[in-house]
Amino acid sequence: MKTQVCIIGGGPSGLMLSQLLHLKGIDTIVLERQSREYVLGRIRAGVLEHGFAALMREAQCGERMDKEGEIHDGFIIAHDGQMDRVDLHKYSGGSSVVVYGQTELTRDLYEARDRMKGVVIHNAEDVQPHDLKSANPYVTYRSGDEVVRIDCDFVIGADGFHGVSRKSIPRDVLKEYEKVYPFGWLGVLSRTKPVSPELIYAKHERGFALCSLRSQVLSRYYIQVPLTDNVEDWSDEAFWAELKRRLPAEVAEKLITGPSIEKSIAPLRSFVAEPMRYGNLFLAGDAAHIVPPTGARGLNSAASDIYYLYHAMVAHYKDGDSTGLDKYSEKALARVWKAQRFSWWMTTMLHTFPESLAYDQKLQDTDLAYLFSSEKALGSLAENYVGLPF
Amino acid sequence: MKTQVCIIGGGPSGLMLSQLLHLKGIDTIVLERQSREYVLGRIRAGVLEHGFAALMREAQCGERMDKEGEIHDGFIIAHDGQMDRVDLHKYSGGSSVVVYGQTELTRDLYEARDRMKGVVIHNAEDVQPHDLKSANPYVTYRSGDEVVRIDCDFVIGADGFHGVSRKSIPRDVLKEYEKVYPFGWLGVLSRTKPVSPELIYAKHERGFALCSLRSQVLSRYYIQVPLTDNVEDWSDEAFWAELKRRLPAEVAEKLITGPSIEKSIAPLRSFVAEPMRYGNLFLAGDAAHIVPPTGARGLNSAASDIYYLYHAMVAHYKDGDSTGLDKYSEKALARVWKAQRFSWWMTTMLHTFPESLAYDQKLQDTDLAYLFSSEKALGSLAENYVGLPF
Repeated sequence: MKTQVCIIGGGPSGLMLSQLLHLKGIDTIVLERQSREYVLGRIRAGVLEHGFAALMREAQCGERMDKEGEIHDGFIIAHDGQMDRVDLHKYSGGSSVVVYGQTELTRDLYEARDRMKGVVIHNAEDVQPHDLKSANPYVTYRSGDEVVRIDCDFVIGADGFHGVSRKSIPRDVLKEYEKVYPFGWLGVLSRTKPVSPELIYAKHERGFALCSLRSQVLSRYYIQVPLTDNVEDWSDEAFWAELKRRLPAEVAEKLITGPSIEKSIAPLRSFVAEPMRYGNLFLAGDAAHIVPPTGARGLNSAASDIYYLYHAMVAHYKDGDSTGLDKYSEKALARVWKAQRFSWWMTTMLHTFPESLAYDQKLQDTDLAYLFSSEKALGSLAENYVGLPF
Repeated sequence: MKTQVCIIGGGPSGLMLSQLLHLKGIDTIVLERQSREYVLGRIRAGVLEHGFAALMREAQCGERMDKEGEIHDGFIIAHDGQMDRVDLHKYSGGSSVVVYGQTELTRDLYEARDRMKGVVIHNAEDVQPHDLKSANPYVTYRSGDEVVRIDCDFVIGADGFHGVSRKSIPRDVLKEYEKVYPFGWLGVLSRTKPVSPELIYAKHERGFALCSLRSQVLSRYYIQVPLTDNVEDWSDEAFWAELKRRLPAEVAEKLITGPSIEKSIAPLRSFVAEPMRYGNLFLAGDAAHIVPPTGARGLNSAASDIYYLYHAMVAHYKDGDSTGLDKYSEKALARVWKAQRFSWWMTTMLHTFPESLAYDQKLQDTDLAYLFSSEKALGSLAENYVGLPF
């Protein structure tokens, strides 16, 4: 087989790039290791920054998001017994975020790809990119007993943290940066009305908690737990009881609990690989960088990679201008690191670090006290949360 | 002897409070352990925030400061081979800082005290506050063989980090927060024309450097050094050579060097003691809190204590309203911690931490990259640097 751009990974990043390029007449093939059902079963992020939403619309996939997604103009930080609101709309100069589950937007992207007869190959095993430094790279995969070869101009590695793409870059070329936090998030998804129409980030001496949501009938709650905890040790009852302890009384008493339909512990980790280009392979999203979920940067960081790649590919194919491709790694990483910075800041401000100095704990409290005393600090938080300019 | 307010410590904080209260008809005695010559020999801070300058004027001590001090509307951060300017005036909404050596302003305060026949007792040995929890506290000191007793309504502890005042608070009442940085600043004072009319903070892989000044003929330079270094090991030549290595070439080649007239190593430490009131003893300035010099908060943090104490004392004596005294510790500490936060942030952003993760070093670089890409982040820096509102 032959295509212009072979995209490894059928998650939101890969699908969106495929869709955007198709609309510009650039041919793509998407290879996904898993079945479509598996991909759609993943419970992931739900807060889309305004630039991401704009990209969904540009990809002609924004209709259901605009109908069913919720515009959030702010969120709450609960701390020291009080509830302070961050007015995103006011402090970002008119922007907001859209709450719309990753599952839903991935479904929309699949449907758009189907409508346009885009090629998305599922259950592609042993995917392997080849000859990446040459002008004629290709990707092989196995389907049953058959090994298939796809010749292409470019390979996009959008296959996540554990994917093959990043691992195809020689170790002496790649520099990896990593930071592991000494805790994880225990998350529960439940078919209950969310306790608050807006997200509540709660700083509490027992640990961080987050009241999030996917829709007005689907709640997503998290609590900070030690990395040594196992999800089996947390009954639904124990989860709800601990969550309530960490929320202000006025919130806890309104909390509607119910059976968990998903429950898992995710470690909090930051990771960045540099560069994001190797020959004719371009990394995007989790394949190159992951962030802790605090501050909702994960999917949004992927979106900015896609934005840069999309425009770079169009300039290359339509105008013969490869500047965007040449600058991709540098541009993408500049924004990636800013998202990493913001996630780090939100994470350290809101979580408990049992080993930290009493002095540092006071600084944490002061970070919040300063934040809510300063329009400039709130402006900085807001511009990061709604997404820095691409 | 008898007075209304007995002030322990004849540095800028104590003198300024004495002067301000005197102007409102409130009687004070200042006790200073050292001679006036010794106090005036200390080489300390030189950057006054705009609120501090206003307080000097209110104390009728601003004349020479306004004539000889330099208004600085901005400063430079040198990093990654570039020079970025922080426009304090623009981003703080019209404020600025005044560069005027602490030695000079202390001299002005002494002269003002002399003019008004204020009582400043030097060489007061073995100063000791007594009966602080009673309505009749008193302070004793020794002058030669004589022990003198001063009865008063209130005792102000403005006697610095090593002074007796904080140590007079029982250990079970006082909570101390401390953070020690793994490096110090080697500082040189020289009678040379400053290399730049504005301060230059330089982040460099060899370590932080600062080009500061006291006037247009008196330069103050610093370099980050390991805590294990001794000042005797640093010849003037070695200092200048190392400073030049850490500055951008365009700055280094303009640097005018000369013999050091003062050279010392100061460790970088953060410290806060809570509460700042114990009975009728009120702590102010370094007696209660110290910060690393990065960001020039030390003297300015003391000034906000004096501002709160001054207004609280006036309300107490003139209006019989003790709310200000009752809220002093809480109000002063709220601002103190914000200054601590800012100093911590400036310090961690600009220094090298040899033990830190490669990831954290990238975050440091990103902090600067984000700062100079965001008007909101610059606004936050500027409002802290010129001084948050009292």
